[in-house]
Amino acid sequence: RCFHFCKLPGRVMGIRLLRFTSVVIIVLLLVAGALTALLPTIKDDKLPNSRREPKTQSQSALDSFTLIMQTYNRTDLLLKLLNHYQAIPRLHKVIVVWNNIGEKTPEEMWNSLGPHPVPVVFKVQTVNRMRNRLQNFPDLETKAVLMMDDDTLVSAHDLTFAFSVWQQFPEHIVGFVPRKHISTPSGVYSYGSFELQNPGLGNGDQYSMVLIGAAFFHSGYLEDFQRQPEAVYALIDETQNCDDIAMNFLVAKHTGKPSGVFVKPVDIRNLEKDTNSGYSGMWHRAEHLLQRSYCVNKLVNIYDGMPLKYSNIMISQFGFPNYANHKNKM
Amino acid sequence: RCFHFCKLPGRVMGIRLLRFTSVVIIVLLLVAGALTALLPTIKDDKLPNSRREPKTQSQSALDSFTLIMQTYNRTDLLLKLLNHYQAIPRLHKVIVVWNNIGEKTPEEMWNSLGPHPVPVVFKVQTVNRMRNRLQNFPDLETKAVLMMDDDTLVSAHDLTFAFSVWQQFPEHIVGFVPRKHISTPSGVYSYGSFELQNPGLGNGDQYSMVLIGAAFFHSGYLEDFQRQPEAVYALIDETQNCDDIAMNFLVAKHTGKPSGVFVKPVDIRNLEKDTNSGYSGMWHRAEHLLQRSYCVNKLVNIYDGMPLKYSNIMISQFGFPNYANHKNKM
Repeated sequence: RCFHFCKLPGRVMGIRLLRFTSVVIIVLLLVAGALTALLPTIKDDKLPNSRREPKTQSQSALDSFTLIMQTYNRTDLLLKLLNHYQAIPRLHKVIVVWNNIGEKTPEEMWNSLGPHPVPVVFKVQTVNRMRNRLQNFPDLETKAVLMMDDDTLVSAHDLTFAFSVWQQFPEHIVGFVPRKHISTPSGVYSYGSFELQNPGLGNGDQYSMVLIGAAFFHSGYLEDFQRQPEAVYALIDETQNCDDIAMNFLVAKHTGKPSGVFVKPVDIRNLEKDTNSGYSGMWHRAEHLLQRSYCVNKLVNIYDGMPLKYSNIMISQFGFPNYANHKNKM
Repeated sequence: RCFHFCKLPGRVMGIRLLRFTSVVIIVLLLVAGALTALLPTIKDDKLPNSRREPKTQSQSALDSFTLIMQTYNRTDLLLKLLNHYQAIPRLHKVIVVWNNIGEKTPEEMWNSLGPHPVPVVFKVQTVNRMRNRLQNFPDLETKAVLMMDDDTLVSAHDLTFAFSVWQQFPEHIVGFVPRKHISTPSGVYSYGSFELQNPGLGNGDQYSMVLIGAAFFHSGYLEDFQRQPEAVYALIDETQNCDDIAMNFLVAKHTGKPSGVFVKPVDIRNLEKDTNSGYSGMWHRAEHLLQRSYCVNKLVNIYDGMPLKYSNIMISQFGFPNYANHKNKM
């Protein structure tokens, strides 16, 4: 199944990728034809996203995802999380973006503790940059990327469900952490979360961004990211922050719709307190939030406009953990 | 002192016209300059679906909906509900399908208690049929229909939000009551709700229908419904039931996707206990659920296949009633 995102050839896919895609499509059609003969009489009870396939290297590029996890100064957390994430259903491969410059990766230890369910690739970096994780890694074989911060633990149930949601909204950032911007009469934007006023006229709140530190998005956006104005890279490097805000701007500009779809996590945990390194993450810096407001305004200048759009859609998994999550008086 | 231009007598009228034109241009420039200063600085913060427009007959056909409410033997509930529903934002018109054969409608009383926010049309029926509400009423001017049972009270907040969701999923039945079918090894289907086993291989539950007694759907489906096999009408008339199951079959066949999108209601109430009529609704009949399983199997025969598809997407309104609905440990 190809979604409308695929119809933008010049932007996302080179000719080689187009050829590869054509071959994949032909193979899929042949397989589909063969399967039709084997189908049981009840043909249409397709249960999207719930069939557990054997984890092999040949998993369809559309039906599996690549985990990209950047890490700095928290190798103990990284390894703990890898043990968890390596076993998530439909995971194809893990790419670890190694920002510990000059330090050996744990690859040897990793291999000695094999075999592992999926391949894990350690990408050694030369400079410790926040935007290292947004490279268009040649190791990427899947359409979907799952990006996780190296201190964030999301349950397998949440990830499996969110991946199935991404498959229904492949042009969006589908993730667990919503944020918003608000505009002010002066025209200056501010960045924040629930504590900021509701930007709408109706009731409830709205979000205009989904952070990529715990989200699925289309790998094509990594390719797109390589083609942004230099000023964007300069901004991210200057602040060592805001790569996620920049990605939301990119996606919103591309789709003309809200960049993200928020999936309410049942079990998401921040493990930063558990690290031995004493390093507790960039968001504890005093200037972190002010920087992000600064970034929003800079990006509006760079892109000559505010592309972010609001949404108030919150998605949960029906009947999970149990029926109580949708029971009502009727 | 006169300049060389004045020496040309034929140009006297020209001078006056020139002066007048200059004055007009200067005035226009001043007005344009003033308007520029008044323009809002933030142009692109469109908030889809949350701007409240004045309710007029000229409301865009895309931005308002028609309430269709069928009623039988519960006029007291009908009138109570009409007082509530007539004031829902974005409502264009109400169509009351009057199944009280031979009985006068409350139109006179309704008019004497005017004015009302929107027009209400009473459609007198000749036969008391469940499927009367699925006619392609010429009074329908909007793309969206809100169909409500005459004993169901859904809050304005829920309806406003669900309408905005329908606008994002216009080919689906967007509503508050999810149901499912399950298949059995014998090939016979069964109809039910949470009490039935989860049809999927993953965790949580799935639904394959959204009941139209509390839902938004595209008015085009009413047109489609007129073109179904005779056997469908016979089935609905025979059981005085299952019109909603038939609609879900229709929509699923049309889209090839799950027919419905479930929006979790914050405040939905069944008022049937409140009626003076003593009439408590069809679903209390002993055979009601068995009939619905029967209908599922009959419809599979009629349509030569099972078009219903499963979904586990549950949509809620972000930050409503308050932040607690998406707060987490992070």
